[in-house]
Amino acid sequence: MLSSTGYGATSATEPLSKLNFQRRDLQPDDVQIDILFCGVCHSDLHTARNEWGNTVYPVVPGHEIIGRVTAVGSQVTHFKAGDLVGVGCLVDSCQQCGSCAEGLEQYCENGFVGTYNGEEMHSGGMTYGGYSTNIVVRDKFVLRIPERLDPAGAAPLLCAGITTYSPLKQWHVSPGKKVGIVGLGGLGHMGLKLAHAMGAYVVLFTTSQGKREDAKRLGADEVVVSRNTSEMREHRDSFDFILNTVAAPHALDPFMELLKRDGTMVLVGAPASPHPSPQVFNLIMKRRRLAGSLIGGIAETQEMLDFCGERGIVADIETIRIQDINDAYERMLKSDVKYRFVIDMTSLKQEA
Amino acid sequence: MLSSTGYGATSATEPLSKLNFQRRDLQPDDVQIDILFCGVCHSDLHTARNEWGNTVYPVVPGHEIIGRVTAVGSQVTHFKAGDLVGVGCLVDSCQQCGSCAEGLEQYCENGFVGTYNGEEMHSGGMTYGGYSTNIVVRDKFVLRIPERLDPAGAAPLLCAGITTYSPLKQWHVSPGKKVGIVGLGGLGHMGLKLAHAMGAYVVLFTTSQGKREDAKRLGADEVVVSRNTSEMREHRDSFDFILNTVAAPHALDPFMELLKRDGTMVLVGAPASPHPSPQVFNLIMKRRRLAGSLIGGIAETQEMLDFCGERGIVADIETIRIQDINDAYERMLKSDVKYRFVIDMTSLKQEA
Repeated sequence: MLSSTGYGATSATEPLSKLNFQRRDLQPDDVQIDILFCGVCHSDLHTARNEWGNTVYPVVPGHEIIGRVTAVGSQVTHFKAGDLVGVGCLVDSCQQCGSCAEGLEQYCENGFVGTYNGEEMHSGGMTYGGYSTNIVVRDKFVLRIPERLDPAGAAPLLCAGITTYSPLKQWHVSPGKKVGIVGLGGLGHMGLKLAHAMGAYVVLFTTSQGKREDAKRLGADEVVVSRNTSEMREHRDSFDFILNTVAAPHALDPFMELLKRDGTMVLVGAPASPHPSPQVFNLIMKRRRLAGSLIGGIAETQEMLDFCGERGIVADIETIRIQDINDAYERMLKSDVKYRFVIDMTSLKQEA
Repeated sequence: MLSSTGYGATSATEPLSKLNFQRRDLQPDDVQIDILFCGVCHSDLHTARNEWGNTVYPVVPGHEIIGRVTAVGSQVTHFKAGDLVGVGCLVDSCQQCGSCAEGLEQYCENGFVGTYNGEEMHSGGMTYGGYSTNIVVRDKFVLRIPERLDPAGAAPLLCAGITTYSPLKQWHVSPGKKVGIVGLGGLGHMGLKLAHAMGAYVVLFTTSQGKREDAKRLGADEVVVSRNTSEMREHRDSFDFILNTVAAPHALDPFMELLKRDGTMVLVGAPASPHPSPQVFNLIMKRRRLAGSLIGGIAETQEMLDFCGERGIVADIETIRIQDINDAYERMLKSDVKYRFVIDMTSLKQEA
């Protein structure tokens, strides 16, 4: 067993604090990773505080992991010590079902194993995430990180990056397409960068006038303040695709109305209480579609990382010490982050 | 001008009664039709009673029209006197926009002209529908009815038929696919027959235990009473496609949950008040889609009629006299019709 130190929650009401725990013995197909950076995702906070009602304590969050390989199992051929690697939201799946066969492990019909708060297949215990010194992961679920990318900025690609890349690809975002991104947070700012890099004409929708300049800097061709109905009306029936990254309940109709015939809006955020019911009329009259999307499969995540590597795309981040994680959560709740916190794990190793 | 006699409403509260009015002079590209039968669609009732708030009185409903050509304009080459023809929900469109160019006149970006309560392009007056002795229609919007079909049973193909055929084709319903049809009314019974004829495995969802045998007779491989949660649960994650024909507000989630990954549910009925808001979680976790569809274009309507002609598919109907139209509306409101009323226009000609 490998000793690990991390930051985690022991109950829904306690702040995160230092925990010691064990990683499983290295299996023949396992990769052992020394963690350098870990992004801070909203899911981490929801899980730490049991806001989805399924948390098993203690929980060590973190599924935007960047590190270096320190050891590999006897059957591992694709990775060696020293490689710069990443781990995202998934660390295992059945590898037997139709979805796994298609490389869509996120839709594994037997349930994927989440990087934290998941049921570990080897021990039957729970998985612990990336707010820690090290991790042991099945080789098939380890990603290669292009060396030219800033490793801290690359961390959010593992969740925010793939969550936005996958639907943009699935719905054929490309030059000549008009694409909307709703929301400029951790997901939205990655969606904006990626849609822009795919060559689309990108319009960023925000409720906040103050984000206009930043959105343009990040790649928006236009910025629309979605509370401004006359600004919205100018874009009616004109979008091929809209990626809606906002998880807070909000009216979908003002965005549905902006889609062309056969246009699609994909939701990637699940609100705690439902959005107001979308009008069926808006779907019928232009044959529009409302769809969902969940992160991405391992092969597509590698494709996204390579895409970002070729273009030098990383997240805009603020690096924090792990000792500041509880403050960071409070700032996230106030949207006071541009646009993702990333924990520098040196801070944990020094404490440990 | 051509004199016409019809049945129509002069206000939202008056029953339909006999009206005399004029059809436009035959234009070079017009076809003049002696009406034999006209199906009775729920839209007729909504419009007669101004339930959508946009009715201009007097209104003569009817957009499932079967008749024989009696005269053609000088430029008409595709039709001649004596031809058995049909007219559906559309009688004109701009023919200039992208949607018209693609043969999707129902999504005409300048607004299609409805067969009744639409703005006539020639006179600027209103269009009058098929509850009448005759009609004059632009040749591009006239359909050819296969002679082997029963003309009365063919009438509902012009709206109920194409409304269900179009989404079934768009979403690739074919052998090997598992398809659900929600609701066994005018639309649902056509969707059932058509999906069955396309070779899919078809499951009919109804709230009424009493429709089980009839659904099987009409082509259902299985019938599920949707109030029965254990019956529903057996079909979780198994449908490629669901066509939902129910316009009354109802929970969509129990059906969304039955879709496979990447499965789609299409709504063809617009409820007067919204459905309960569908859960985003159901969309995200299996990348499912909720979409809409509106009737079909002229080319696709002809394709559907030819498809039905080859297979002998018509609607199950009850023929009525036009003098009984107000009673028929009351029975429709009680779902007391299997599965479409069709007016035999002999009754009107005798009265006229």
